[in-house]
Amino acid sequence: MTYCVAIKLDTGMIFASDSRTNAGVDHIATFTKMKVYEKPDDRLITILSSGNLAVTQGVTNLIDRQLRAKETGTAEAEAPSILEAPTMYDAATIVGDALREMQRRDGVFLTASNIDANASMIVGGQIKGEPPRLFYLYTQGNFIEAGGDTPFFQLGESKYGKPILDRVITPSTPQKEAAKCVLISFDSTMKSNISVGLPIDMLWYPRDSFRVGLQQRIRENDPYFTMLRTRWGGGLRRVFADLPDPDWLE
Amino acid sequence: MTYCVAIKLDTGMIFASDSRTNAGVDHIATFTKMKVYEKPDDRLITILSSGNLAVTQGVTNLIDRQLRAKETGTAEAEAPSILEAPTMYDAATIVGDALREMQRRDGVFLTASNIDANASMIVGGQIKGEPPRLFYLYTQGNFIEAGGDTPFFQLGESKYGKPILDRVITPSTPQKEAAKCVLISFDSTMKSNISVGLPIDMLWYPRDSFRVGLQQRIRENDPYFTMLRTRWGGGLRRVFADLPDPDWLE
Repeated sequence: MTYCVAIKLDTGMIFASDSRTNAGVDHIATFTKMKVYEKPDDRLITILSSGNLAVTQGVTNLIDRQLRAKETGTAEAEAPSILEAPTMYDAATIVGDALREMQRRDGVFLTASNIDANASMIVGGQIKGEPPRLFYLYTQGNFIEAGGDTPFFQLGESKYGKPILDRVITPSTPQKEAAKCVLISFDSTMKSNISVGLPIDMLWYPRDSFRVGLQQRIRENDPYFTMLRTRWGGGLRRVFADLPDPDWLE
Repeated sequence: MTYCVAIKLDTGMIFASDSRTNAGVDHIATFTKMKVYEKPDDRLITILSSGNLAVTQGVTNLIDRQLRAKETGTAEAEAPSILEAPTMYDAATIVGDALREMQRRDGVFLTASNIDANASMIVGGQIKGEPPRLFYLYTQGNFIEAGGDTPFFQLGESKYGKPILDRVITPSTPQKEAAKCVLISFDSTMKSNISVGLPIDMLWYPRDSFRVGLQQRIRENDPYFTMLRTRWGGGLRRVFADLPDPDWLE
């Protein structure tokens, strides 16, 4: 499985993804689930993906082939590439179309073997002339957009880590605090679900910068994340211990 | 949806269930999901249920009909009732068989209308001559038993509330602390999922007592639960605020 979070803050966007994939417990591997398209001073687009890895890798390959077709001027070069899409809505449509194309190609073969061809994706970023925008793409290729009331989307094993996001995140949360909250959300998820694992890829996009602000890979033994996990776990146990026990029980 | 937890401690067992049911968001109602069979000084058996309400109500009706057949001496009276089962394993088998019978009766009609006939149940308690035992029944009627390594089972919307149980609960956790932990687990679940709602039914079974220790219904405005929710939420935010922000982010 997978765990990914993307947040649209007033000051920019945070993207985070784990990198464990598994096809059965005896086939575990590390693959990044974050793909970044950057055209400095014009756009920054990040794609997070979950679900069938062959399908989601196929999606980014279709997007990349379209980019190369532009460069080499081959016949496929008519439709706009993700680096030419005039709006984030168009960029999300390009990704959704690629997802549909992969489902069309692979779906029937996977279904015949009773294999799940589902894949969900998050597409977020900013294109010059627009504010930052964040989309959640369903496996059918359709999508929804995050607004002020719902400033974040999650992919994959989202439930373990949702309560802390629900408690903390609003559009006006400072980015440092939001990044801290995202890492705690990952800690809760990894504590209860072994199919989500390190390293965590994190990306910070400062609003109106049109380039990557910071890209960080958090590995085993990362000092900040290790400190956060220890102190969060200890703090939770302390708050828990300080709460009075029910007096209706012996 | 539903949220239920059952824990097997060294000192006894705790059972808890929410009571919101919904068939679409415009058809929400309150039904208890906890059913208790008690024969003082001989046995205490608690059943928690989730999934299709018609199926799970059918299960308890089949069990109750068998009990009445014993009392009135009708033809059905040959198989042992849940109050006669010699072990908890046999009690779980009786419930599993009833689940299979309901699936056999209703399954084909529900499937024809594309309605989910799934139902999972927890059966726990103690019968004289045995230690307390706790079983998780799948929708197919088969089941697994909790051991020392896994002292609790959950039903329904289990992921939001699992991290705190994972952090706190072991077989040696005192019952007051375990009850507090269960209520915090319900709080996390209800905060992130509106399909789980009050009141919460709680039952405490002291080991080797063979009767209900305490049965409690926690409603809206329950002073202990309200205090717990407020102080837990406040404590979490305080621990969160005290953690250093990442220094790699502006």
